[in-house]
Amino acid sequence: MNISSSVAPTLTMDGLVLETPLLLLDEQRMEANVARMKRQIERLGVSFRPHVKTNKCIEVSRLLMASDDGPITVSTLKEAEYFASKGVRDILYAVCIAPNKFEHALRLVRQGVRLKLILDSVEAATLLVEFARAQSVVFDVLIEIDADDHRSGLKPGAGEVIAVADLLRDGGLSVAGVMTHAGSSYECDSDAALRLMAEQERLAVVNAATRLRESGHPCPVVSVGSTPTALFAEHLDGVTEVRAGVFVFFDLVMAGIGVCKVDDIAVSVLGTVIGHQPEKNWTLIDAGWMAMSRDRGTSRQRVDQGYGLVCDMQGRPIEDLVLIGANQEHGIVASRSGAHPSSYLPVGTQVRVLPSHACATAAQFPCYHVLAPDQVVRETWNRFSGW
Amino acid sequence: MNISSSVAPTLTMDGLVLETPLLLLDEQRMEANVARMKRQIERLGVSFRPHVKTNKCIEVSRLLMASDDGPITVSTLKEAEYFASKGVRDILYAVCIAPNKFEHALRLVRQGVRLKLILDSVEAATLLVEFARAQSVVFDVLIEIDADDHRSGLKPGAGEVIAVADLLRDGGLSVAGVMTHAGSSYECDSDAALRLMAEQERLAVVNAATRLRESGHPCPVVSVGSTPTALFAEHLDGVTEVRAGVFVFFDLVMAGIGVCKVDDIAVSVLGTVIGHQPEKNWTLIDAGWMAMSRDRGTSRQRVDQGYGLVCDMQGRPIEDLVLIGANQEHGIVASRSGAHPSSYLPVGTQVRVLPSHACATAAQFPCYHVLAPDQVVRETWNRFSGW
Repeated sequence: MNISSSVAPTLTMDGLVLETPLLLLDEQRMEANVARMKRQIERLGVSFRPHVKTNKCIEVSRLLMASDDGPITVSTLKEAEYFASKGVRDILYAVCIAPNKFEHALRLVRQGVRLKLILDSVEAATLLVEFARAQSVVFDVLIEIDADDHRSGLKPGAGEVIAVADLLRDGGLSVAGVMTHAGSSYECDSDAALRLMAEQERLAVVNAATRLRESGHPCPVVSVGSTPTALFAEHLDGVTEVRAGVFVFFDLVMAGIGVCKVDDIAVSVLGTVIGHQPEKNWTLIDAGWMAMSRDRGTSRQRVDQGYGLVCDMQGRPIEDLVLIGANQEHGIVASRSGAHPSSYLPVGTQVRVLPSHACATAAQFPCYHVLAPDQVVRETWNRFSGW
Repeated sequence: MNISSSVAPTLTMDGLVLETPLLLLDEQRMEANVARMKRQIERLGVSFRPHVKTNKCIEVSRLLMASDDGPITVSTLKEAEYFASKGVRDILYAVCIAPNKFEHALRLVRQGVRLKLILDSVEAATLLVEFARAQSVVFDVLIEIDADDHRSGLKPGAGEVIAVADLLRDGGLSVAGVMTHAGSSYECDSDAALRLMAEQERLAVVNAATRLRESGHPCPVVSVGSTPTALFAEHLDGVTEVRAGVFVFFDLVMAGIGVCKVDDIAVSVLGTVIGHQPEKNWTLIDAGWMAMSRDRGTSRQRVDQGYGLVCDMQGRPIEDLVLIGANQEHGIVASRSGAHPSSYLPVGTQVRVLPSHACATAAQFPCYHVLAPDQVVRETWNRFSGW
């Protein structure tokens, strides 16, 4: 493959040369990823509450939502606020709420957002009940269940599950149900392990829901979610909804555990060659960790893809170029196999770098440059950031 | 130490509860850090060209600059653009320029910015000369020298140093001098090693400058820079200016190599406890990698500080709590020594988390919440991001 003949020298938009680094979003790949998830959700017979923390963009999220009303999952109240400003109403804030966010949650509810909060302790439930009583507001609350010892949540069999539900109900709040996130699925390394993890995630919430119902709590919502478990679940009996986010773009971590192919990854960082260190066979590009993020998620996988896998302008990996190092605005590209001397990519050549972790890389950029199926960029879609 | 008695329950601004996570900037610590660098620069008898990539904020940068005109160092042309809009005119863009940024550099020069560009190859020099000739513009160019095999630049003794200078001069551009950055100083682990690295950095550019002068190039600018070498240089004979950036805030990586004390670190992420996993002795907070960044710079140091060191509201480390894990909006706090059970920090407690890498953590936030010497937040200072 001769890079000089296979790539356009520079990417343009409206006839103007685009400055790098920038974040390319391959529309065709994204649409295929969304279609795949929707087919799976349909087959499972549950509802879908996409997690928008990966994309933080109304144009992308509209492709995922069942309607303009939602439903969606968010990771911050700023996400809730932004999507509410775009007309979304059915929003689950999927991080246990801190007391300093109660006022913000209240404002959202008073704006007409059907906001669902989560928590996993008597402590937090007590504080929320006090606040809700003082403000005469009814919050919908889901109890977070720990399916896999990964992070937060109560064990499905813990006495505190019932204690929290009783406390919320007696305090006048609405016990909307249970939710869990099997974050350990990101570390599974075979289809069989992914199927087992999906089943473990399902069982955890279904068991907690059963216990709650036996204690007199209706528990209408039984929510699970992660991209790997959503795609590998064989059935979701007893579950009412699935949440997932990263599937819309996928990334090298997901490819590394076999949830997608490298060719499915829909976001890439466009960078430009700025120099070489021929003695070390290094090519320097203008995409460092400020562009890629510091995520090194593949370092624990079978194939370590460094700070990203280097592709040509059509998004095809240039075997075997990876970003082996990253400073703030410098990326160091090297050939793992030694097949490509550093002169392979002359100064000015543009490359697309696939990210380890789409959520982290996309968060470094103010917008997506949308690459249409004809490989032309005609529009940008804004992202938001911060809290 | 009893956390409940030593901390205010929540931080407020103008009487309103502040939502977490947010980025606190301790004004007093920052001012002490700036004073320390200025004393050192004065002692060395060189001029100072602060690197503003760490702070990306005019209020912070004004404390560093010799005058409103500059000089400053930037890592992106967006930084140059932003600071130019605030009246700064003397700007060094310290990343080898990519051809797709020539137009942008030209616009800045035509706006009256005294922009200095860098490059490290005949390839790049040829492209820049072609562009400058076509546009009838004279760019000031410094040749990047590699002092420590760290990243980019030409070796001081390389024939290409003279070839690039000749090419630039013959092409009508101004050969402003040489510059280097001893990035390896971040990996030094003793004062002696830091002093040696500072001397190695000095020698590299002074040697290159001598060779250029012998070849008929005046080489007025001889520029070095990194926070560790700037602070540990014993003398800088032959050098005209020093660049440094992270010293303004410092961070755990700098403390780990002995360049500062942990108590000098001026930025911290304010987070709030949202839950516990008592069986694992974990405390969950609402500051994950989206707030801290994914930087794990201390993982290669003698003391691994995880994703950050947890402090009370006065910024004093709570021995021995660290952020051992981070998901997008969740941080997992645990006691390394086992001295503190997870119940030590009740739900709603606020903590300040010191970052591994100030440049990376600050980049995750839209603004600084400035903590005045009386520990009250009265104002925010905006940061900018993107390219």
